[in-house]
Order: sequence, then C-alpha cells, then structure tokens
Amino acid sequence: MRDECIFDELKEECGVFGIVGHSDAAQLTYYGLHALQHRGQESAGMVVTGGTGFRYHRSMGLVNEVFNDEILKGLVGRTAIGHVRYSTTGESLLTNAQPLVFHNAVVGQLALATNGNLVNAARMKQELEQKGAVFHTTSDTEVIAHLIAQSQEKTLELAVKEALGQLIGAYALLILTNDRLLVAQDPHGLRPLSMGMLGESYVFSSETCAFDVVGADYLRAVEPGELLSLDLKGQEGIRSIRFTEPAPRAVCSFEYIYFARPDSDIDGINVHTSRKQMGKQIYREAPVEADLVTGVPDSSTSAAIGFAEEAGIPYEMGLIKNRYVGRTFIQPSQHLREQGVKMKLSAVRKVVEGKRVVMIDDSIVRGTTSRRIVQMLKEAGATEVHVRISSPPVKYSCFYGIDTSNRKQLIASDHTVEEIRELIGADSLSFLSEQGLIQAVGRPKETGTCGHCLACFNGDYPTEIEEEMPLMTEGSIR
Amino acid sequence: MRDECIFDELKEECGVFGIVGHSDAAQLTYYGLHALQHRGQESAGMVVTGGTGFRYHRSMGLVNEVFNDEILKGLVGRTAIGHVRYSTTGESLLTNAQPLVFHNAVVGQLALATNGNLVNAARMKQELEQKGAVFHTTSDTEVIAHLIAQSQEKTLELAVKEALGQLIGAYALLILTNDRLLVAQDPHGLRPLSMGMLGESYVFSSETCAFDVVGADYLRAVEPGELLSLDLKGQEGIRSIRFTEPAPRAVCSFEYIYFARPDSDIDGINVHTSRKQMGKQIYREAPVEADLVTGVPDSSTSAAIGFAEEAGIPYEMGLIKNRYVGRTFIQPSQHLREQGVKMKLSAVRKVVEGKRVVMIDDSIVRGTTSRRIVQMLKEAGATEVHVRISSPPVKYSCFYGIDTSNRKQLIASDHTVEEIRELIGADSLSFLSEQGLIQAVGRPKETGTCGHCLACFNGDYPTEIEEEMPLMTEGSIR
Amino acid sequence: MRDECIFDELKEECGVFGIVGHSDAAQLTYYGLHALQHRGQESAGMVVTGGTGFRYHRSMGLVNEVFNDEILKGLVGRTAIGHVRYSTTGESLLTNAQPLVFHNAVVGQLALATNGNLVNAARMKQELEQKGAVFHTTSDTEVIAHLIAQSQEKTLELAVKEALGQLIGAYALLILTNDRLLVAQDPHGLRPLSMGMLGESYVFSSETCAFDVVGADYLRAVEPGELLSLDLKGQEGIRSIRFTEPAPRAVCSFEYIYFARPDSDIDGINVHTSRKQMGKQIYREAPVEADLVTGVPDSSTSAAIGFAEEAGIPYEMGLIKNRYVGRTFIQPSQHLREQGVKMKLSAVRKVVEGKRVVMIDDSIVRGTTSRRIVQMLKEAGATEVHVRISSPPVKYSCFYGIDTSNRKQLIASDHTVEEIRELIGADSLSFLSEQGLIQAVGRPKETGTCGHCLACFNGDYPTEIEEEMPLMTEGSIR
Amino acid sequence: MRDECIFDELKEECGVFGIVGHSDAAQLTYYGLHALQHRGQESAGMVVTGGTGFRYHRSMGLVNEVFNDEILKGLVGRTAIGHVRYSTTGESLLTNAQPLVFHNAVVGQLALATNGNLVNAARMKQELEQKGAVFHTTSDTEVIAHLIAQSQEKTLELAVKEALGQLIGAYALLILTNDRLLVAQDPHGLRPLSMGMLGESYVFSSETCAFDVVGADYLRAVEPGELLSLDLKGQEGIRSIRFTEPAPRAVCSFEYIYFARPDSDIDGINVHTSRKQMGKQIYREAPVEADLVTGVPDSSTSAAIGFAEEAGIPYEMGLIKNRYVGRTFIQPSQHLREQGVKMKLSAVRKVVEGKRVVMIDDSIVRGTTSRRIVQMLKEAGATEVHVRISSPPVKYSCFYGIDTSNRKQLIASDHTVEEIRELIGADSLSFLSEQGLIQAVGRPKETGTCGHCLACFNGDYPTEIEEEMPLMTEGSIR
Repeated sequence: MRDECIFDELKEECGVFGIVGHSDAAQLTYYGLHALQHRGQESAGMVVTGGTGFRYHRSMGLVNEVFNDEILKGLVGRTAIGHVRYSTTGESLLTNAQPLVFHNAVVGQLALATNGNLVNAARMKQELEQKGAVFHTTSDTEVIAHLIAQSQEKTLELAVKEALGQLIGAYALLILTNDRLLVAQDPHGLRPLSMGMLGESYVFSSETCAFDVVGADYLRAVEPGELLSLDLKGQEGIRSIRFTEPAPRAVCSFEYIYFARPDSDIDGINVHTSRKQMGKQIYREAPVEADLVTGVPDSSTSAAIGFAEEAGIPYEMGLIKNRYVGRTFIQPSQHLREQGVKMKLSAVRKVVEGKRVVMIDDSIVRGTTSRRIVQMLKEAGATEVHVRISSPPVKYSCFYGIDTSNRKQLIASDHTVEEIRELIGADSLSFLSEQGLIQAVGRPKETGTCGHCLACFNGDYPTEIEEEMPLMTEGSIR
Repeated sequence: MRDECIFDELKEECGVFGIVGHSDAAQLTYYGLHALQHRGQESAGMVVTGGTGFRYHRSMGLVNEVFNDEILKGLVGRTAIGHVRYSTTGESLLTNAQPLVFHNAVVGQLALATNGNLVNAARMKQELEQKGAVFHTTSDTEVIAHLIAQSQEKTLELAVKEALGQLIGAYALLILTNDRLLVAQDPHGLRPLSMGMLGESYVFSSETCAFDVVGADYLRAVEPGELLSLDLKGQEGIRSIRFTEPAPRAVCSFEYIYFARPDSDIDGINVHTSRKQMGKQIYREAPVEADLVTGVPDSSTSAAIGFAEEAGIPYEMGLIKNRYVGRTFIQPSQHLREQGVKMKLSAVRKVVEGKRVVMIDDSIVRGTTSRRIVQMLKEAGATEVHVRISSPPVKYSCFYGIDTSNRKQLIASDHTVEEIRELIGADSLSFLSEQGLIQAVGRPKETGTCGHCLACFNGDYPTEIEEEMPLMTEGSIR
Repeated sequence: MRDECIFDELKEECGVFGIVGHSDAAQLTYYGLHALQHRGQESAGMVVTGGTGFRYHRSMGLVNEVFNDEILKGLVGRTAIGHVRYSTTGESLLTNAQPLVFHNAVVGQLALATNGNLVNAARMKQELEQKGAVFHTTSDTEVIAHLIAQSQEKTLELAVKEALGQLIGAYALLILTNDRLLVAQDPHGLRPLSMGMLGESYVFSSETCAFDVVGADYLRAVEPGELLSLDLKGQEGIRSIRFTEPAPRAVCSFEYIYFARPDSDIDGINVHTSRKQMGKQIYREAPVEADLVTGVPDSSTSAAIGFAEEAGIPYEMGLIKNRYVGRTFIQPSQHLREQGVKMKLSAVRKVVEGKRVVMIDDSIVRGTTSRRIVQMLKEAGATEVHVRISSPPVKYSCFYGIDTSNRKQLIASDHTVEEIRELIGADSLSFLSEQGLIQAVGRPKETGTCGHCLACFNGDYPTEIEEEMPLMTEGSIR
Repeated sequence: MRDECIFDELKEECGVFGIVGHSDAAQLTYYGLHALQHRGQESAGMVVTGGTGFRYHRSMGLVNEVFNDEILKGLVGRTAIGHVRYSTTGESLLTNAQPLVFHNAVVGQLALATNGNLVNAARMKQELEQKGAVFHTTSDTEVIAHLIAQSQEKTLELAVKEALGQLIGAYALLILTNDRLLVAQDPHGLRPLSMGMLGESYVFSSETCAFDVVGADYLRAVEPGELLSLDLKGQEGIRSIRFTEPAPRAVCSFEYIYFARPDSDIDGINVHTSRKQMGKQIYREAPVEADLVTGVPDSSTSAAIGFAEEAGIPYEMGLIKNRYVGRTFIQPSQHLREQGVKMKLSAVRKVVEGKRVVMIDDSIVRGTTSRRIVQMLKEAGATEVHVRISSPPVKYSCFYGIDTSNRKQLIASDHTVEEIRELIGADSLSFLSEQGLIQAVGRPKETGTCGHCLACFNGDYPTEIEEEMPLMTEGSIR
C-alpha cells in the first residue's frame, strides 16, 4: 500500500505453519513463521495447546515484532498453529489477525488459520446471518467456523467435512481444537501446503523453506480435496479423509513465478530452479543482443541469471535495492521525487552507462513500476533497455487470494504487448508464453491438465466465480 | 491485581457513555470517558457512526493512552458510545474490550457497551452454543448480541426487548446500530445510568460527573426495566419502552460508599455529601475520644471530614498517597518491604506522633490493608488507632459486577467485629449500621424498599443467583 | 507547560536523592526519587558506583517510566545518586537530564545532581569558554564540573570547595566519584536538603518524605554553606567542611506554601501542619461569613481544612480534580472549552449550589486560574465566592529555581489586591501577610532573620542577582 | 553483536553526509543517510542550521526509526550534516551518537560528524584532561572538539588546521558551525569521502550511492590531507586548504571488498565491478572444476557472478538469507540450533544436492561462519565444497575503524591456508593474492604506491600506531 504510487507489486495474502506434539512447539512455529514472512507482513499470530486450553498471541507487525522471548515462553503446549497475514479480503484489522479463535460448547475451543480466499464467502455469510449468526471479523475464515459450529454431525471431522463441502475457493487450512489438528487443502490444490516430519512430530507449512529452517524433512504435499486428521495425543496417528472427489491439481502459477521463496520446493520442484528455467526459456523465445542482463531485485534475480547463462551475456548488478526500507520509511514527496530523489530502488550508473541492457522482471501488473525502472536505467546512461518478463501477460483478476481483483488496473487486460512496450518506454518487450512457463516449471504431467492455475493469464478459472459484497466496517484494535 | 498482595480494594467493572447527534460526538465521548476513568482502567473504547458505517477504536490502557488526536479525528460521526473497563467476569483480553462490535445481516452493524454483570450468562451461552453459535470473547456482553441476532422479532426494539427478557443480572446497557441507539437499565436498577441533555443532544452516562465535564444538564435516571430508543436522525425523538414489570429500585450501595466519584449525583443525591453523612452517622453510632481524624485517601476523605465535623475533632492529613503510582511502578520486593520500604501509602509521622488517631475507611474486604495501615500509623507514633468504617461489614459475594465473588476472602463472612479488630490491630473498630447507611444516603422512600441493594451486607439478593462456569481461555491480542 | 493556557502553576525544578554503602542502593534510590516525583516530572536519572566505574541511566519521563526492573538490576553498586527534573534554566533536552556524568583524568568519573539555580552561571560559562572549555549541555550544573576540573587543588574536596566558592545562587548538590560522595548546600540554605540514616548507610534527600518511603530516619538538615564528604568505603566516616562563612538560613517560603509534599518536614517543621496554620492565620487576618470552605485540590487542601476549623465553617469538596490527567491527555480545543468542556478541575454543583463559598488557594501567579475557578464555582451556583490565598502576593521574580523569571506575568507586580479581586471575579479576596506566613510556619528564630527567603514577595534577595544570557540551542536526543 | 556466536562479520563504523545551502537540507540528508545505512545501524543523527542556531536530533536505531516526518519538519535550515554509526571505539551509548554538538564562546556552536578512528585519541584525551578538560562521551570525536576549542588561532579554519595536525589516524570529518562547514580527509585518505553537486549546493558523502539517491552529481573525492571550507551564505564559495604535506592515497581495501555498497564508486571505480573482477581473478589464480558457483549473500554475490562467468560454471542460488531478520529477532537457543534450527542463512537442498559447489565469500575473519556455511552445504547434499575468498588472508588488526582490534581472533594470523581449510571443512580453499586484489580493483597508479591500505593483510600500516587505553564507563541514555 505504501508503495502503491510507485510500485505495483502483487500481494500474496498469507502463510500457515503447524506442528503437532513437540516440546518446542511455540519456538519452532516462530521460526517457521519467520521463514514464511515474505507471504504476509501485516500481522502474525500463534495458538498453542497443551490439551486443556488455548494460549495465543496475535498482533499487527512482523513475526519478530509480534513475538518476544517472554511471549513465546508463555505459549506453553506441545501443539501449535501459526499464521502470517497480508490482507486481501477483509481489512487490515487486528480482529482479522489469525489464527482466529472461537468457542463453542460442542467442539470447545476452535482455532483456524488459512491461506487463500473463498469465492462464495459473502453469500455463505449472508445465509448464516439470516439464521442469527453474528460476525466479529471481516475475514472469510470466520465463515468456516460458523459452518462447523452449525453442523449437526457428531464428530469434528464430519462437521469440518460438511463445512468444507460448502466452500468454493482456494485454501490451505489448519483447524486446531484441544485434542485434534485438522489440515485441509482446497479441491484444486490452488494454494501450496506441505507436510513434513521433525523427529516424531508432523509439521505443516505453506512452503518447504520453513521445514529447512526448523530442520524438518519433507514428506509430501497435502492433496487437493484432502482432509488430514491428527490426534494430539498421538495415539491414533494421522488419518487422511477425502471431502470431495479428486480433481486435478491446479496450483497457482504465481507461486513459482513470484510468491514462493527461491529455496522452497512446490510438489518437489525447486522454485529458484524453475525461475532460472523461465529466464532461459524467455531468451529462447525472445532472444536479443545486449551488453548485460540485470534483474529487478529481489524476485527476478533467478530468472535474470538463467537468461544471462542461456544468452551468454554477462549478468550484472544494474539495479540495486536498499535493504533498509522499513515500515516507517518516509517516502519522498512528489516535489523531491521530481528533483531526482530515489525510492528504494536505484540504477547503477557505472554498470549500465553506455550499455545495451536486458532487464528481467517477473510480471507486469499496472506497468507503472516497469516504466519507472526503464526510465531509471535510461537516465543512468543505458543506450537500450530490453524488457523480458518471466511470465505471460496478467489479463484476468485472481479470485483465489492475489490482490488483482480489479481487472481494470491490469494493463495487459486492454493493451497489446506493443502498446505496453511503448507505455513503459522499453526498446523491446517480450512475455514468456504459457506453454513456455509450463515447460520451464516442468511439473509432472497429470491426466488432462497442466497442473497449474493459469486463470490470471487466460481467464480459465478452475472453480465457479461469484461477485463479492462490499464491506463497510472501519476500525482498529491495537 | 498488582496491589493484591498488599491492598485489597474493591474493583468496579465499567463505565459507559453515549451521545446522539452532536458534531463533536467523539471528542465529547473522550472527555466523558475520561471523567468515568475511575470505573475502569484496563481498557477503553469508542464506536462512532455517521449513519453509514461504524468507525471504532479500542485498546488496553487509560482513556488518554488509548486515544490520541489523530485517532479521535478519524472517529467521524454524530453519534458515539464509549466504554471504560475493569474486568471482573471475562479475562483481561483486548478481545473483551468494549464496545463490542458485531455484524449481522438483519440488524447490520451492532455495537454494545455494558456496565454490570449477568447472573445467567454462562447458562445462556451454553444454550446458544448448542444451537451453533460461536463466541469470540469471554465477555457476558457477547451473549446479548447473540440473543438479539437470534430473535425472530421484526424490529431492533422488539428483538432487544426479547433478549433483555431472558437476562438476569445488573446492567446499564448501550446498543448502537447505524440508525438507532438503545439504552437499557436492568429491572432492579442495580447499576447507575443517567440521561442528560447537551444542547439538542441526548447524553447517557454511568455517572453524572461526565455531564459536568462535557457541559451537559442532568435530566433523570434511566428507570429500572426501562428501554429507551433514539432515532439517530432525530426525527422520532426519544421513546421509552418497558421490557419488564416495574420493580422497586435497588441501587448498589457501594456506588455511594466507594465507587462513584464524589462529584457525581445518583438519583439526585450527591455522593460526597452522602459520604460525609456516613462519616457523621458512624460518629453518632460509635463515638470515640481522640486527637485527630484521618481518612484513607482518596475514597474516605469525605467520610473522615464528616466524622471530624460531627465529633469536633481536627481533621488531619495523617496518611498520604503517592499520586504518581502508575501501571509500570515497580513494587518493592518482600525483602525491601520488610526493611520498611513503603508502597503508595504512607503515614505522616509529624502529624500522628503521640496522638490518638481515628482512621476512617470506606470498607474492609480482606482486612489486610486495614491491618497494614493501622500498623503504619502505630509505627509512625500514633498512641491509639480507632478504626471507623463508613459501611456495614461485607459478608456476602456480589454477583452484579463487584469483584467479591469468592466469599471466603471476605473477612467479615466468618469473623466477628471483635475478631476483625484484633486481627487488624486497632484499639477500637466500628462499622456503620445498615440502617445508618440508609439514613445517611437519604434516598427517597419507595414502597416496600429502602432503594438500595444491600446484598453484600445481608445476603438478600434482588435477583435469582446462578453459579458461573469456569473459563478456560488464555491469550492476548495486542 | 501543557496547562499553561489555563492553569498557571508555579514549577519547581528538581529533586535529588543519594545513598552511600547499601546493597539495595539502586532500588532505594528508585523509591526515593519516586517520593520526590512532585518536584520534577520531566526526566529522571540515576548513577550507581561499586567503586570501579559508573553505571547510569537517564531518560525523559516519570520515575516509573524511566526505570524498569531490568534497568534497575543493571545498576549494580552500593552507592547511588538520583535526580528528578523539571527544567527552568536549560531546555527540556535529554542531554540536560541529570545526574550529569563527566570524565576527567584527575578526578576520574564525576557525576553531579543538583536542585536549584545559579545566578552567575552564564558569566562563569563565558569565562570557562574563553579558556577553551566546550559545553555539552545547557544546564547550569555543567559549569560546576568544569570549575572542579580546572581547579589546581590536590584533592576533590578542595577542588569542590574552590568551585563552590565561585558560585552564586541556590542549590542542593550531590557530587559522586568512584570513591567519594560530596554533598553541599548553598550559603543561604535556599533549597532544602536533609540527611538521614538507613541502617549503616547515610541517605540524602531534597525532602524527608523520601526517608519515610525507604524506611530511613531523619538526622538533620544540611547546613547553609556546608560541604559533607563521605568516603564510599566507609572507613573515614562523614566529614563536614565549610566552604563559606555561615550565613543565616533563608529557606524558600514556597517550599512550605506549595512545593514540598505535605508529609515532608523542613527543618523539623511538618509541611501539612504549617499549611493548616496558614489557613487558620488567613481566617484570623481576613474572616468572612460563609456556608462552606473548599480548597483548590490538591495543594490547598491543608490550608482549607485549617481555615474551616478556625472559622467553624464546614469544609466541603466543592472542587474536584480528575486524577487521570496524564501527559498524553488531549486538551479540549477553544471551541469545546467555550461549549463548557472542563479541564482537569470541576466544581461540584450539588455542593456549592446556593451557597456562600470560601475558596482557598495557595498563591496567585498570573490570575488566570483563579478567575477560571471562581467562574466555575459561580456557574455551579455559588452565590458568593470569597477567595483566601495562603501566601502573600507574588510580586518579584525568583532567581533561585522557580519559574517566575518574567516579572511581567506576575499579576501582583502591577495590580492592587482590589484590582486582582475584580479581575478574578471574587466577592472578596485576601492574601496572607508576610508576618502571618512567618508565624504560621513558626521556624525557630535565628539572629537577625526570619529564616525564610521572601524575595518573591518583597524583592529582598539574599544573594546578588545577575541577568542571564539567552540560550540558543534547540534539539532533542531521544 | 547479536550474531557474534554464529557469524563473524567485519563491522564498519560510520557514514557521514552533508549538504550546504539547500531548501530541503534535512530531507535530503535523511535520504543520504538512508543510502549509507549499511555503514552503521546503531544510531543516526542530524544537525541542521539556518545560520542562527542548531536544531538537531540523534537517537539509537536505524535512520527510518530515528527520524519521522514531524522530526524532519522541525529540522529547519539550509545546511545539514548527518551521521550513521556502528560503534567500534566508544561504547554503544546514546551520548556517543553523532553528530556531537558542543558550545564554546569563541566558535559558538560546533557539530562534528566523523567516519574513522584516531590512533592517538587516548593520549590526546589524557593531555587535555590534565589541563582541566571534562569529557562527556567516550567517542574519539570529542577530542577534536577540545583541540579546536583550545586552539589560540584566530579563525575556525586555522584552529581546525592546528587540531588536525595533532591527530593520527583515519577519518572523514564534517565540522559545522552556524556560518561555516569544514570537510576534512585524513593525510592518507584511508576512509572514502566524496564531493558532489546538487543544483547550486555542495554535498559530501562517505559513499557516492547517496549522491545517486538524492540526485546529485559526483565531482571528485576529497584529497588526503585536504581541508575544505565552505561559507554557509555561499558568498565565498569553496576553499581548499592543505593541513599536511600531500601523502600518497592509501584507501582501505575493505571498502572495495566488503563495506561499500555495490553501486558506489570509490575514486571513480565502481564497487560491484571491482568485486566481479575479484571473482574473475580468484578463478584465474585458483581454478576448480565444479557444477555450480554460489555466493554468501549479500556481500559476495558480485564476486560469485564474476567467478561463474570466468569459469563458465553456472551461478546458482545455493544459499539464501532471510531478509526479515531484524533487531528483535529471537536467536535460536543452543538446544534448538543443535536440533537443526537455522539462523538467517540456509542452504537450498534442491540446488546443491549431489553437486560440487564453489562457495565464494569476501573474507574469513574468525572462520566460524565459513565452517558453518560449508557444513550447511554439505548437510544439504553438496558432494564437494570449494571455498574461494575474494580477498587475501586477514592477519593484522585494523586501527582505522574496522572491528578487528584483537588480532588473536583473526584465524589467519596464526594458521596456514591449509590449516584453515581443514578447520572450515572445505575440499579446497584459496584466497585472492594481494597483487590480484590490486589488479582487480585497478586503481590508477600513483608514484610509489598501490593506492590501497593493505595493512590488515601485510601489517604495513600507513601511520604510527599507539595502544589504546581501556574504557570503563557503562551506562545508557534513552
């Protein structure tokens, strides 16, 4: 938000982490959430149980701001779930910070942590309210709690199964009670969710980089439409239940292109490696003669290195990012920007001066960032700037948790590549093809599907789509 | 809580304030809440509406810590309700900070602020949960929201009326939607709630001192069992609805004795004046020869002055309180206390040395404070310490919002006055009689009632009493 | 400062506390400073030594904000000096927060804490700077450090003696090195400084109330022109050195009238008791018929009770102060004040309505507060308001540490009592006479002196007076 | 410090920035300091003058934590100097935060900001103290202020010239008064200091990256032994004065190797480019067969890319750094580290598994970090790890501002390369040769010198060296 005048990055919404039956549950969840910090910087939270009651802490801020030693020590219990959040649906309210915690006589205490977005949340909410439900948050996740509470099923598993059957959307979901952890993945596997093992303890994480950080071993991805049920006492082991018919996996392409950390693997494919392949592939699709290749830091570095390697053109640090831009950084006024004061990104004159530059970026959303970077490079003396984008043009809104719901802001929705090239002032511009993207990632073939959700490129949504109701609450709890 | 090892004060739970249709609604609510700060120092909050949506802010802390200029400016709207809280039922969680805000399709947004305690909240909660309700807070007030949401009645007024009909307990209640403010008093009028007028605007407050601060004029007390309904657009005026048969008023005696600010009036009777009368009355009931009278600051000053005046004994400042004891004050360790390091209260040697002292206090709860103060006075050289308490002995738990739910901690529940005297080390001890208290306050006679709730003295509760369920959630949201 | 638009209180500048050779030195200094908090709320600080190096902490804020448990635990050492500050000379900068700490090869580390004001600081500073001294602070106290460092004397005692010989002004001074504590009082004894004993340890404090709080026994006042020298190892005992000829004591009258805590004794005279006598005396000097007496809280309560007792008129709580006005309290805008929103003080309608009120205040500085309070009482229904001031009219600037350096703001400097009465809207007004003040306090007679500095009433300054240089630094260190 | 158990990075001490005669002086200094943040993260500060007095602000923390909009707006004036600090000499005290501000009658107000370290500060300090000087800080920079104040010279320029003549060491120095800015570089030009132009305003900065950020143009480096004098009114222009005979430039090699930002130029040579050359050169000196090259992020990325390019081996992201490690990050306990919980750096299994890895790092100080990273790579499955260091072995302490004063901690001071290789567990290890370093940077030849200080590699110090006195003050001002 604070960068929106200048930068137009895509925003991921959330990351989840959970661990069952470990004496350092809270500490490990802290490190796990820290590894997932790139997925959400707005709030963080954790719920811990020792079997007899929840202890929890949630706050606005980064993981290392939200938790301190004393707070962690207070989170006693051998099972924990945690969450980092960047809000897409639902406002930036502390009440929306997850895990959400509820109480209901039938299931007792209930905590929920989700990554994703429900397509039919507004309608479900309306139906529940008609029956007398009251809502505290503006978060989709609260809908799931109400559906569980209103189920007439006898067990938590059955109630959750019934609830999930009513949801449409993308989600990786952790549900904690005082004696059970349930883990679910949406029917199309749109959001990544992996299962690992740390000693005797099962761990779950939106990305595998959190497994590396806590020293856990990767087991497998949670399957589309799978519901895992774990007894917290560890007497039953883990049970896998299906709540829908198996559908082919359609994992969000942007996880590979942009969101996930380069050291994470999604379905066994390393993200850095797939990005480097995207860089190689875009060179093959749209070669260019140039003196150097540079990436827009940090997300495009892998692709830029791949491009340089494939092209045999030196990779250089033509753009640099100030690492110390924090939340409280004072943005330069319009007046100062016009006088040349730079934001967090600047071009390196000595590197690009007099050179033909290939600039690699992961995507173009509104085009304003690209235009600004091309201009920076030219002002720093680049004689030519050739832009290569390691993804296809983003033309359609995402309804599964990426902040592109207003299609009008997507420049590629109503401009040709040539028009965009002109608009951003590049000497040439090419996007990676859909087919090139699929090849670069190289997911194993599944019957009748490429394994990706490519809806933002081609409008082919894997689920039904509903319009959302406007939200009207404003407020803050600190 | 931080003083509980040493001091054993009674804790009041809450204060509410509301104003309808004023261009400075948020600012005036800020000053109103500030005047009610003595009723709750744990959290504060405010919800404002301009008719099209709520804006709200709640936080842990004092009114002047919770709000700042910028936050107040963001609370745009002509109608506001506010709350200060000290928790009795429900833990010290930010999620419990009031006004609580809910959303329900039928009534839209709903904010509730209450002062008091429900006797049957636990049972109501259980029943609601059986029907699928999920609870976010551990506050009684959330029960009211659910009852309203589940009502099949057609209008908000009727739904609230139905909800209140199911509640047993003590409450002063403000309910705000985007087009209406409802104000209710429990059937026995246990908690004070006054109505005033500021220009064209109605104002409501737990105590009249808030009216003085904002420049409002007192109109009348809200009646036991009365439900007031105000249209926010001001087209309908104010409507008074009864939700129960009129019962005789039984206002909490401790509002006069201890809780209310001396400059407040309850049912037209000034609190300072009634306390001074209590002081005079206890002298008449239990005269003593002495050199000086001192009160335990600040709550017993009025009674002490009354006692001194009636007795013709000089009133002196024999005890002094450090005004700068804040939340972050480091309490002296046991080791230091044993060496003579004082807490916030100390005796003035030059004043009491060699003197026979009458020490006036408002009440004895556990007796530890009284023992400590008597000891201080004797260590400072008082030759005799005669304790006079401006209320009868507290023998029974309060279920209406005062923190004396564990009867075992009430020293008078199982000790005679003589035993207590010995225990606190006083040379003589007398409590005000119930009859003396009633006379001192001098409430107008109502048929068949003294107008007070005296249950904590005599166990004669005005309502049914139910046992509460234990609570088990721990956590914090900051 | 924050109240200056409305209230015009006198501001005291500082308090000092020291303890030598105690295993809880830092903790006891914390409680000592806390008891002196009324003497300065801007910053607080403490320096502790165990003989081999200083540990110190200073910050803006109240004592309980500046220190926490962890900080106190880090202040290891058996000797400590501390300071609370309200700035009169020198700006509100953290660099000015005391104790000041210096390093010099001859004396090693040096810490200074002072209460008071030097009359010739500006000139001394100029002379030192001519010789090449550089100054870090805008505080007078730094001058003393330079004078000590530049002395050619062989011992610290002699160097300090030489330095003090060059100073003109009012001060209570603590000087700490790693092996010695020096304690000095200005030649006229203008600022109070007392010596006490806690077990084997000497303690020093601006006021005796700090002795009561830490459990120390009062020994005696430090004498005018006395320099005490204490060996930190306790092998030498305490030595008293004179640095000037003995001059008659001239203690600041306002310490009795307003500044000191009522439970403090100055030269053996209790402050509350002397204030009560002032109240009795003003009644004798200027009796009036009325229905009730009220004091302006909190400083005038003792005098008001004295007046009421002497007059046989009931003392009532006609004015009440909100105890929760903190640093962050949002002052009402002019617009809201005009609409009747009250500040921290309000009149109690039920008490004063229809009554003839005597309002006791300790002093009139600019007159704006008095006018406002008289008006409040009349608006609340008082039929007559008779103002009695328990001190003579303040007509002259103080150069010894009280914030009245601009004489033009003193209403009594150019108005008669009748003019002031009219200006504040009182029905009658009387000030206590100088003679009455002296009698009320009842200090023991010393040859040729009343024992008081009365310069602000009669312009008879006990020392030479020099004009001060303007200061020009602005800044802040947080 | 917080990383010292695991990481053993070299610490740079400071960065300075100044601008003369610009209407946005404070804002531009904010952005300039922000660009220099990598040179010091402990404290930041700024002094601004409009000619009639200083306004300043200093605090512990990052630039964006220390300053906010309101503070910047208060820093009114057309000339500013600023400083970011990491303490090497002098403790981490707020009193040491620069610019230091002094007052002296002769020169008026004086502010100093330095980058570097004085070799003879302790002795100078002792001499000054003998003459009666008192010191407030433990910073070397205060010595300079005293020398200036004690000079008998008539003008500031002459006084500063005399002062600098007495100093031995490395420094880039800005001295501000209300009418003049002086800029000095030590006689050997050890610390970088560049001059630029922004419109009509001169700007000075430790690194040129700050010029790019504020839109200034680079003019030239300040020369060794040069003193620049600028009239703040701009009437005199800039004057260059020599305070010593010209000595050959000996710029710190580690500025190229590690400290400076890759987009900065030092004496016209781009830092990223020189690092890439170092990478190429080390391949030429010590080639190796391998499957991939990875750099230790972020400082070794440039060198790693150079190595990869020269070797024709793919550059891969084999190591990844968590960008969100902030000051408040909770380090994993020994217990958790032993269980495999990672710190801020982790190896990417999918990338390195089964591969022969070349790991490029910029230096080896204590060897502990290198050992740990090699181990990480092997645990992640690397079959071979070949370490190439883009600098010669660090064998000697630096006395010019880099935190390697304890020679015993330098592993290369008493171990051969083969011993170090074994110790860090690498399959091969090579350091860049001194000659290779000089060639890679490619500074223009000056008579009889390589243009670098290589003392930490070969012990050939460009200045005399004195031992430092131990410091003994502890404390904190917040």
